[in-house]
Amino acid sequence: MHTTAAILSTGDELVLGQLLDTNARWIAEQLTTLGIRVVQVAVVGDDLNDLTAAIARLASTHDLLITTGGLGPTAGDLTREALAQASSDHLIVDQEQVNILSTKLRNRGRNVNDQQLRQALRPTHATPLPNAHGTAPGLCLRIRNCDTFSLPGPPGELQPMWLASVIPTLHPDRKVLTRLLYALGIPEATCAERLKDLTARARTPLIGMTASGGIITIRMRYEGSDAAEGQALLDRDEADICTRLGTNICATATAGQTHSDQALASVVLNQLTHRGEMLALAESCTGGMVAEVLTRTPGSSAALAGGVVCYTNAVKTTLLGVNAETLANNGAVSEPVASAMALGARRVIPADWSIAITGIAGPDGATATKPLGTVWIALAGPNAYLQTRHFHFPGTRHDVRTRSTLSALAMLHFALKGAPIPKLLWQQDA
Amino acid sequence: MHTTAAILSTGDELVLGQLLDTNARWIAEQLTTLGIRVVQVAVVGDDLNDLTAAIARLASTHDLLITTGGLGPTAGDLTREALAQASSDHLIVDQEQVNILSTKLRNRGRNVNDQQLRQALRPTHATPLPNAHGTAPGLCLRIRNCDTFSLPGPPGELQPMWLASVIPTLHPDRKVLTRLLYALGIPEATCAERLKDLTARARTPLIGMTASGGIITIRMRYEGSDAAEGQALLDRDEADICTRLGTNICATATAGQTHSDQALASVVLNQLTHRGEMLALAESCTGGMVAEVLTRTPGSSAALAGGVVCYTNAVKTTLLGVNAETLANNGAVSEPVASAMALGARRVIPADWSIAITGIAGPDGATATKPLGTVWIALAGPNAYLQTRHFHFPGTRHDVRTRSTLSALAMLHFALKGAPIPKLLWQQDA
Repeated sequence: MHTTAAILSTGDELVLGQLLDTNARWIAEQLTTLGIRVVQVAVVGDDLNDLTAAIARLASTHDLLITTGGLGPTAGDLTREALAQASSDHLIVDQEQVNILSTKLRNRGRNVNDQQLRQALRPTHATPLPNAHGTAPGLCLRIRNCDTFSLPGPPGELQPMWLASVIPTLHPDRKVLTRLLYALGIPEATCAERLKDLTARARTPLIGMTASGGIITIRMRYEGSDAAEGQALLDRDEADICTRLGTNICATATAGQTHSDQALASVVLNQLTHRGEMLALAESCTGGMVAEVLTRTPGSSAALAGGVVCYTNAVKTTLLGVNAETLANNGAVSEPVASAMALGARRVIPADWSIAITGIAGPDGATATKPLGTVWIALAGPNAYLQTRHFHFPGTRHDVRTRSTLSALAMLHFALKGAPIPKLLWQQDA
Repeated sequence: MHTTAAILSTGDELVLGQLLDTNARWIAEQLTTLGIRVVQVAVVGDDLNDLTAAIARLASTHDLLITTGGLGPTAGDLTREALAQASSDHLIVDQEQVNILSTKLRNRGRNVNDQQLRQALRPTHATPLPNAHGTAPGLCLRIRNCDTFSLPGPPGELQPMWLASVIPTLHPDRKVLTRLLYALGIPEATCAERLKDLTARARTPLIGMTASGGIITIRMRYEGSDAAEGQALLDRDEADICTRLGTNICATATAGQTHSDQALASVVLNQLTHRGEMLALAESCTGGMVAEVLTRTPGSSAALAGGVVCYTNAVKTTLLGVNAETLANNGAVSEPVASAMALGARRVIPADWSIAITGIAGPDGATATKPLGTVWIALAGPNAYLQTRHFHFPGTRHDVRTRSTLSALAMLHFALKGAPIPKLLWQQDA
């Protein structure tokens, strides 16, 4: 039985902060969904002693250990040696892997040399895992009572290997069901108070919340032996939460859709597709971010007609038809320009709805009356619908851009629901 | 002296894989830049025993421990208790923090209740760290011989607290200098062979490489007591690497610019700004990603005029003037349409250069002759410059979009250098 698991990510680029550890998140999500509890994640650099110690420590306290990285051909790839040392074993050349590797390298027109062939080494009691998308095989071995899987670092190699060679061998001892709810237009503290009894520590299902960029993510999780019971409990709590938060609940999602901006984008795209309506964008300070977030979703072309990134005033006038006098009199970051951009976008790109965003993302461009983070968002729609909102977002250039994107999608979400747009976080009084 | 450090990230959302741990990367990069070696990063969930054990273990083996998260008002915020238990201490109410917290809550129109006031608890021998951007104070205390700093999870609170209250107290015992080089249009294995002697393990400076999305990142790092010596060694090796890789070297960066897509975007923006030239974009399958990546850089408005996200054929014809017959005869993903989009973008958005991208990012849309990942990129420029390239990118929708973005920027980079565009990774023969 695999009850608890640890993940060990390896690589100097991780402990040096040069690379974000996306593999650990992905594997943790996979294990959680399968019903195996990830107790800890550890990250160590390309140092044989550190690696060996981490493998020995984690293997002695968990049923399952997944390591990532360090299987390539370079001198910094030390996972094989560390696995051997941690399991009091030594490395041998796997002749079958030499053959597979040589064929792969020749097919790619690369040299078959000693350095490349390091990838065919393995501890004597380890089994290689085929790599369908790269050269380095993975490794599977038992260290004490811990099933250990070592996977290559590139996600494009790791993920298929995980699905093909790791998942079929796992034995979770229970069911885990997760569900996510998203809430908008309500302060986190208010939300926490309304859900206080539901978020108690030892409760089933476990319910927790985090806030980011103006969206609150409420995470629900059932762990137990009975999937039907779990679904019923999640249904009961979801209904309860929806009653307590009312129109502030904007979306629900199951595991896999874990980013609040992505969740809101999906909701808005679904709403548009369901209504058979199209959206056009006019982005200044967000520079294409709204379009990029929306088009991450497959099938978004059914709801997004297109957009204009109008990073200069010239583009605002020539492509969107914003009046040069309106620009000169009010400045690019103003309610009249945001409105004109939204109306212009809907005119030049045939669409039912349009969003326009103009603001000061920084670090330059602030003035006494328009401080950093000042953003105007306009939303135009059918039947002469036009709403504008004035925000003052805190944070960095990146924060201002992502918060602008989320706020724009939130405005559209409420409009598509036919609801008045509530006062959103960081919105300025009219 | 602070020689070695550990980072402990806490939160169920991290071990459940629901959130990416960006704080650990940021802190690791900060510590590395300061000359303090991050030996390991650990991540545990909101469990008092796991947290306490991790703090005790990490504090017993490092000079410095940074924890993130778990300082908020909810029942899942357990860092304060864990710090007390790990240091054989107990929690007291810090009356000064109660006053500060009450004022902050009142100013935000929130209730001052027992749950909120949990944030004013601290181990007796801990010092609170002011939080300029949120309610929860950080904590600083010594556990055995380890200086421990506990910071709040939201990056917008953590980063200012780090800069204001942690950095001034750190005592690195050596200088660390880092430098990054980026290489394009060369297979990773070839690059590894050309630099083999430079990437030996024990060498100073340490040199390593990783490949992602068609760009190879070469990381150089000097650790020692003499900054001048370090600079000289890095200069020597950088010159050597540039000689060995020739025109395949596309950019250099110092610590802080760690993402290859961002590095290439900065290089291209600098090249354009230096030449006083402007860029226009016409994006179909990338849906605004090129614009978004470029506009992340402050001051990008000096080089990026704007762009059109032409997600439907209607937008390609109406806004960019692509001939409807060209579209009908060749399909949207074709060389003639890519060329027409690039020429159209340069016409409707006054600019010197234009990039057009049209392709099949998937999961739908593939045909027998145009498989998933088929992308045409066109680059138009002064003096009737027009180059098109045909790619077949492997991977997911996200991979195809990011690889398209990087390849487009790479093409522009070589064109701005006045160099022929080399055959790029995943490019199809003409």
